[in-house]
Amino acid sequence: MLNYTFENLQGETLYEYLYNCIRADIQSGKLAANEKLPSKRALSRQLSISVMTIENAYQQLLSEGFIYSAPRKGFFVAETEVESRKTSLDTPPVSFIEESIPDHPDYFVDFSSNGTNPNDFPFVTWAKLTRRVLADDRELLMENSPSNGLYELRRAIADSLVQFRGMNVSPDCIVVGAGTETLYTILLQLLGRNRVYATENPGYQKIVKLLNANEIANIPIAIDDSGISTSMLAKSKASVAHITPSHHFPTGITMPVRRRNELLAWADVTRGYIIEDEYDSEFRMLGRPIPSLFSMDHHGRVIYMNTFTKSLASTIRVSYMVLPVSLMQKYYKLLSFYSCPVSTFEQLTLADFITQGYYEKHINRMRTMFRRKRDLLMDAIKNSPLADHSRIREENAGLHFVIELDLKISDDAFLNKLAEEDIHLLPLAAYGTSHPHAFLINYSSIPEERIEEAVARLARCLAD
Amino acid sequence: MLNYTFENLQGETLYEYLYNCIRADIQSGKLAANEKLPSKRALSRQLSISVMTIENAYQQLLSEGFIYSAPRKGFFVAETEVESRKTSLDTPPVSFIEESIPDHPDYFVDFSSNGTNPNDFPFVTWAKLTRRVLADDRELLMENSPSNGLYELRRAIADSLVQFRGMNVSPDCIVVGAGTETLYTILLQLLGRNRVYATENPGYQKIVKLLNANEIANIPIAIDDSGISTSMLAKSKASVAHITPSHHFPTGITMPVRRRNELLAWADVTRGYIIEDEYDSEFRMLGRPIPSLFSMDHHGRVIYMNTFTKSLASTIRVSYMVLPVSLMQKYYKLLSFYSCPVSTFEQLTLADFITQGYYEKHINRMRTMFRRKRDLLMDAIKNSPLADHSRIREENAGLHFVIELDLKISDDAFLNKLAEEDIHLLPLAAYGTSHPHAFLINYSSIPEERIEEAVARLARCLAD
Repeated sequence: MLNYTFENLQGETLYEYLYNCIRADIQSGKLAANEKLPSKRALSRQLSISVMTIENAYQQLLSEGFIYSAPRKGFFVAETEVESRKTSLDTPPVSFIEESIPDHPDYFVDFSSNGTNPNDFPFVTWAKLTRRVLADDRELLMENSPSNGLYELRRAIADSLVQFRGMNVSPDCIVVGAGTETLYTILLQLLGRNRVYATENPGYQKIVKLLNANEIANIPIAIDDSGISTSMLAKSKASVAHITPSHHFPTGITMPVRRRNELLAWADVTRGYIIEDEYDSEFRMLGRPIPSLFSMDHHGRVIYMNTFTKSLASTIRVSYMVLPVSLMQKYYKLLSFYSCPVSTFEQLTLADFITQGYYEKHINRMRTMFRRKRDLLMDAIKNSPLADHSRIREENAGLHFVIELDLKISDDAFLNKLAEEDIHLLPLAAYGTSHPHAFLINYSSIPEERIEEAVARLARCLAD
Repeated sequence: MLNYTFENLQGETLYEYLYNCIRADIQSGKLAANEKLPSKRALSRQLSISVMTIENAYQQLLSEGFIYSAPRKGFFVAETEVESRKTSLDTPPVSFIEESIPDHPDYFVDFSSNGTNPNDFPFVTWAKLTRRVLADDRELLMENSPSNGLYELRRAIADSLVQFRGMNVSPDCIVVGAGTETLYTILLQLLGRNRVYATENPGYQKIVKLLNANEIANIPIAIDDSGISTSMLAKSKASVAHITPSHHFPTGITMPVRRRNELLAWADVTRGYIIEDEYDSEFRMLGRPIPSLFSMDHHGRVIYMNTFTKSLASTIRVSYMVLPVSLMQKYYKLLSFYSCPVSTFEQLTLADFITQGYYEKHINRMRTMFRRKRDLLMDAIKNSPLADHSRIREENAGLHFVIELDLKISDDAFLNKLAEEDIHLLPLAAYGTSHPHAFLINYSSIPEERIEEAVARLARCLAD
């Protein structure tokens, strides 16, 4: 037994080869359970290899449970088989996915979402700051971030909230997340799973998907001209409302003060919560930004949420929420065992980016560029045959507007024609409402030089 | 009415000043609801400022809902108050947290956890790769990552799994997360909330906290000499088992093959799932790593989980899981609406780090260093009075071992004495078991030059 030759050695060490041989014999049954193995010394002589090699192979087999040792008696083959199972370690399964990720074709112009144009990201500055952080902040980079994010970043966010939003919040009430989705996940745990969530209809379908995936009760509440209907909200069983008051997605409505007060009153009376999602408030096109609901709230009912994925790059996953003090205390007590999901490398770089004024400059530059794009787009529409057959709804906020078209064909037929012209457009209906002939125009990432041609194609498809 | 002077202008533009004056009058009630405002032209003459300035101020008030317009009639003050609420926009709440984050005192030696020593992280290489990525991969950096991570990173992970673990998996079955916690959150949704989770006792308390915070039923299952007890598991209602078979945390047990087969048989029979958490398998100190449960599984019952937070840096939040094909298909169908929580910047840098062989070099360098530290520590213990009053339990795996001490005093009293000597140690009991006089020694981040002195202090506290 155990009469192995070492002729077929292929790159393995002697001990690995020996280990493999013995293991194979155990698995094939050649070596039976509880059979005694030769002593290390005996096997060493028999195979003409060192005792150390045998020792290493036995040790490996021992630690994997293929053999066991009895004091002063030696090594024995272990029972490894379980009745209902045949082991075959050597054929790992090769996995494959039949339904792969859907393709993203290259459209001439894609109005369906606001990506980040590679030319618009401040790569030079970001690279400079990254270099600085990697050279100077090594200690800090290796130190675990507090659960709610590095103080440096929360301080920078608090400062920018004063500057951009006139909001005065403590860095201690800020929780940093890797995109708003990780923050929602925290909120579900913080607010408790027995609450019913109200979502805007139409509105972000992602939040609805997230609630459904987490098996959290949720109901769509209709949008009227002022935003979410407070009377319908009051009639519902909801105790948490997710809203986008600065710039409703997708209709573009800015919630007027009266409705804001009604919402706050609803939250006060019902002890409910409002999640105020300000996904693109930095890009308000005219005038100063509207005060946040969070600033208007005096009873700790509003959770403020914002993200750098819209204002900086969708691929930098940093978002944050500001919690009322009572919820923040609960967070520290119950949920601060979670690690912050954003790496310290990115937290520190972003903190520098904000603190050194680059963020403000970037926002201003982007706002100017977006405004120019919007104006070009509006002019192109005004000077095209579309002018007499469409109405634009927008509130000078955010990075999209809605266009209503006088269509003689169905929305689907129209969109198919557009697709043939290499233009991608989403109907408002895709966001959970039955609003015919209304389409969403996300304009932030479309190339300026293609605007005129894109409008011409839209007009052509409308006319045909 | 509206008789404002512009003497107190402080940095605001004229229109902002005017907007603030009118808003204040509306909020104070000086301007009553439904009162008509002067026409833009009239107010322009009255205040001697341009029509455009009035227009901008009115527009702002309009978009915030403080005034409304009636076609051909002009502008009117809106009703903003809600019965039960007094608005006072100008005093945003200042938040503060009473219970702050606990302090981390600087110990002489801290055996309680394995952090990353700033000197051990490959900063120069990381900086070089980051620079390269920021210079060359701009398009890719701005492109949204698939929900389960960039292909480049998943490919690199799949390759390193072959290399380090002999595991043959498709990149399509890998899901990248920002630390294992974000992956558990995905798993809870993927496996469904009605399952009962079995956790190792003693074991990682974080997974228990996470399950509790998500209100998921879970039960602790005792550990015997081979790891989690399959007989107790079979008697329980659990259908998902979270285990650390390569190197049980905290006892250090490596699960033998027989128990592995028993576990797989349990999962086959009950249609249950095993979450195989390999948090530090790269640092096995002797011999080749033990085959993963995932490789032994032929029926899609094992979810393999690993992380770069242990092998690279705890502050780089990248982890991954490998799903069986059936679960991966379910993931694509139900949960791929989630954005990948890791930024493309870090995904691409890490992918390069692995692909160009730096990861392997890093692991080898670290393994050598950790082995040296472990040997120094073992020698120091052997040559100290501790030798006759302690037993060490370890399996040559991972970055910690357990030391059992012949204590004449209580664990608490001993730990207090140690704290006075500036040494931090955690009892095994902290991980959910009643194992007296057993303590956890995490040695990866302790400074070599302090090992001898730390052991001397341990011995002193034991002798006193």
